[in-house]
Amino acid sequence: MAKQKKLVEAITSMEDDFAQWYTDVVLKADLVDYTSVKGCMVIKPAGYAIWENIQQELDRRFKETGVENVYLPMFIPESLLQKEKDHVEGFAPEVAWVTHGGLEPLQERLCVRPTSETLFCDLYSREIHSHRDLPKVFNQWCSVVRWEKTTRPFLRSREFLWQEGHTAHATAEEAEARTEQMLHLYADFCEQVLAIPVIRGRKTDKEKFAGAEATYTIESLMHDGKALQSGTSHNFGDGFAKAFNIQYSDKDNTLKYVHQTSWGMTTRMIGAIIMVHGDNSGLKLPPRIAPTQVMIIPIRQDAEGVMENAEKLMDTLKASDVRVKIDSSDKTPGWKFSEQEMRGIPLRIELGPKDIEQGQAVIVRRDTREKMIVPFTEIPAKVTALLEDIQKDMYERALAHRNSHTYDATTYEEFKETINEKPGFVRAMWCGDQACEDKIKEDTAATSRCIPFQEEHLSDVCVCCGKPAKKMVYWGRAY
Amino acid sequence: MAKQKKLVEAITSMEDDFAQWYTDVVLKADLVDYTSVKGCMVIKPAGYAIWENIQQELDRRFKETGVENVYLPMFIPESLLQKEKDHVEGFAPEVAWVTHGGLEPLQERLCVRPTSETLFCDLYSREIHSHRDLPKVFNQWCSVVRWEKTTRPFLRSREFLWQEGHTAHATAEEAEARTEQMLHLYADFCEQVLAIPVIRGRKTDKEKFAGAEATYTIESLMHDGKALQSGTSHNFGDGFAKAFNIQYSDKDNTLKYVHQTSWGMTTRMIGAIIMVHGDNSGLKLPPRIAPTQVMIIPIRQDAEGVMENAEKLMDTLKASDVRVKIDSSDKTPGWKFSEQEMRGIPLRIELGPKDIEQGQAVIVRRDTREKMIVPFTEIPAKVTALLEDIQKDMYERALAHRNSHTYDATTYEEFKETINEKPGFVRAMWCGDQACEDKIKEDTAATSRCIPFQEEHLSDVCVCCGKPAKKMVYWGRAY
Repeated sequence: MAKQKKLVEAITSMEDDFAQWYTDVVLKADLVDYTSVKGCMVIKPAGYAIWENIQQELDRRFKETGVENVYLPMFIPESLLQKEKDHVEGFAPEVAWVTHGGLEPLQERLCVRPTSETLFCDLYSREIHSHRDLPKVFNQWCSVVRWEKTTRPFLRSREFLWQEGHTAHATAEEAEARTEQMLHLYADFCEQVLAIPVIRGRKTDKEKFAGAEATYTIESLMHDGKALQSGTSHNFGDGFAKAFNIQYSDKDNTLKYVHQTSWGMTTRMIGAIIMVHGDNSGLKLPPRIAPTQVMIIPIRQDAEGVMENAEKLMDTLKASDVRVKIDSSDKTPGWKFSEQEMRGIPLRIELGPKDIEQGQAVIVRRDTREKMIVPFTEIPAKVTALLEDIQKDMYERALAHRNSHTYDATTYEEFKETINEKPGFVRAMWCGDQACEDKIKEDTAATSRCIPFQEEHLSDVCVCCGKPAKKMVYWGRAY
Repeated sequence: MAKQKKLVEAITSMEDDFAQWYTDVVLKADLVDYTSVKGCMVIKPAGYAIWENIQQELDRRFKETGVENVYLPMFIPESLLQKEKDHVEGFAPEVAWVTHGGLEPLQERLCVRPTSETLFCDLYSREIHSHRDLPKVFNQWCSVVRWEKTTRPFLRSREFLWQEGHTAHATAEEAEARTEQMLHLYADFCEQVLAIPVIRGRKTDKEKFAGAEATYTIESLMHDGKALQSGTSHNFGDGFAKAFNIQYSDKDNTLKYVHQTSWGMTTRMIGAIIMVHGDNSGLKLPPRIAPTQVMIIPIRQDAEGVMENAEKLMDTLKASDVRVKIDSSDKTPGWKFSEQEMRGIPLRIELGPKDIEQGQAVIVRRDTREKMIVPFTEIPAKVTALLEDIQKDMYERALAHRNSHTYDATTYEEFKETINEKPGFVRAMWCGDQACEDKIKEDTAATSRCIPFQEEHLSDVCVCCGKPAKKMVYWGRAY
């Protein structure tokens, strides 16, 4: 009963302490556990099942665009990491170093991959000879390590799971097209599957990936008004190709450098789902990503016919491709209701002897708590329709929240006041100088999130220095 | 054209040099590439797609038995690794050590997991309190690292991919049942999906896993007569539970130690597929695991109607759930034939203008090279039937090979002669003393592969020392 007690303690309310609310939810929804390995986490079955659904759906979308999966080593020799100057500067301070293999010191130390550009370049330099070998559109699912000082489950941990795509193309145009294609794929995935609206745009030079010519990003807004970088896609031009000498002989028999891209999405998105959709009863999972979409909860499960009807209902729903389970544990129905809510299962069906007598069941939505009494025969169609409605409504609510927490600022006073008093995105014009980004960060702790693909002209001058404006930028405090 | 030249060079014949034949096949079938990271490999798309199919099929079978997937850290603190004495002795000499995080030395060094018993025990000691928390039946898909001195693609590399299941149970009986259940699951998977017959049995104490009470194994026989350990399942009893203090309060309110198991299968199985089924034209993939089951090769693909008919045929086959591709590259048909053979694609369909005129196509089996002329309308049914036949025939051929390379020996002279002159399994009686295993290994380089579940009584005395025999053992030289 110790475990039961733990859950019924109310979780911290998100209005009181959003960070503590987040920690309570990840633990009480049974998504992660801490471990003896500092800065790392255990992803438990309920958390990993979400990641499996993310993987499956992304992987399907990748493969439709011609992506092929591969697996490269988890170690990078120090000399290989150092080949591209900007890249090593960006990553060397935060990698873990292997110095001994078995009982002997290594001749050259190896870092545990923080990202695998250098390994893919090493592979491509051996594999690419002719224009016939192009394009290469490879991806791998793996874990990477970055030695972070402060960590939080899913959002920032020393080891995390992700996919990293790495491509090589004959021309700059093809590389640019692939970079943008993958960004839009991520954006569509977030909006259609995770019900998380995103801003699509480009990072400033200050914020771009170490070694990239251009980094594109999708940015989402959490419930507390902080931004989360949710997926990035980088165009490397031929910088890595020159550092690693990746050349191909073109149709005209001249040697040319390839143009490369990379793009990634991580377990961080599970954190985004929690912080965009969750409430004070726990997690809320969008139906398309929920490992269990419907939990059937028998009332008086020892009474005649209750379990039989519950199982019959489960089979009917399974036949309609609904992911459904029965909670037949020996807990009380009330406890099972809170558990289903805490774990974010989109629908529950309550089924007791009286319901069965009347040929009906009670369906309750997790997102709105709306209760409906539905005759048995109508349940499969109703459940399917409700799951679609919930998916759509969750997206609309997240979009409305983002829109009502997006502000415009044209003067620096207004900018600072908004950042300090109204958590959310602030849209403001920028001169293009990194000095203004640095000053804004120092004054407000906000960073440039992106230059959106769809810019608006909010004023003629930079919100910080007053010089002529070049770009419109989304600013915000971020995870 | 450089690449085309490379493939048409004959690969080394397996009769001349089996090891070189193996290396030629893994490279020319495009399964792996070497890397700058010594002892590690790159698994390329053709190799990784086989692993994805292995994963998908095993994972489905696991989940049917109640397995839940999780993800644990890739690092193990040195103090945690040392908690179980036998375990650390077995693994410490072959682990990679991380000593620095970012620019600073770590307070305690971390090893990169060679296997994760200690981490799962650490988790279970926090998560298991009551009999209601049992059983735990967790699995993870990940890579592990063992600092091997000599390495070969798939068979032995410093990093490899695998799954590792780790379970905790209330009773010794439940743990034993799970250990055996998973061994049989592996065996069925090998036989039904990979078309590889296996011997199911138990390892001797000398050969069992570090820290296990009992290790069960499935052993398969490669084409060169060497054995390959193909999957293992370990019963730990309560040894780890005592070392990590994993106790639960039972229904009678007494504290008891849990009983644990672990079981794993690795990318090594891709090596097994190559060495069991391959021939001097390259790889031969069993249809159930082949990423591409049918390659349609257009003859004179510029001629009117050829590509249209090829595509129509592809769509028809896809509708019958056949994994099919068209090779529409600008290579010659002859070249495409050898490539399809090298890559082990079970069937090819040749389709040219004359075939189309006559409403038929040529189907060629990879395993037997049998050619058939089949009318268009009959192709889907024929292909489906042929894929089943090939699967069955490949298993039967592998079984016949194993049976004809399994010998019995009752005297030590006979034993040594057989091991030296007839590559294969030798079945012989054993007294149960490790001294005899050691002597046999020293004299013949053969090891005890397993004590089969189905023993036969071949003689009354140990083949080595002549003392009374206790067990029948499969012996062999092994990868």
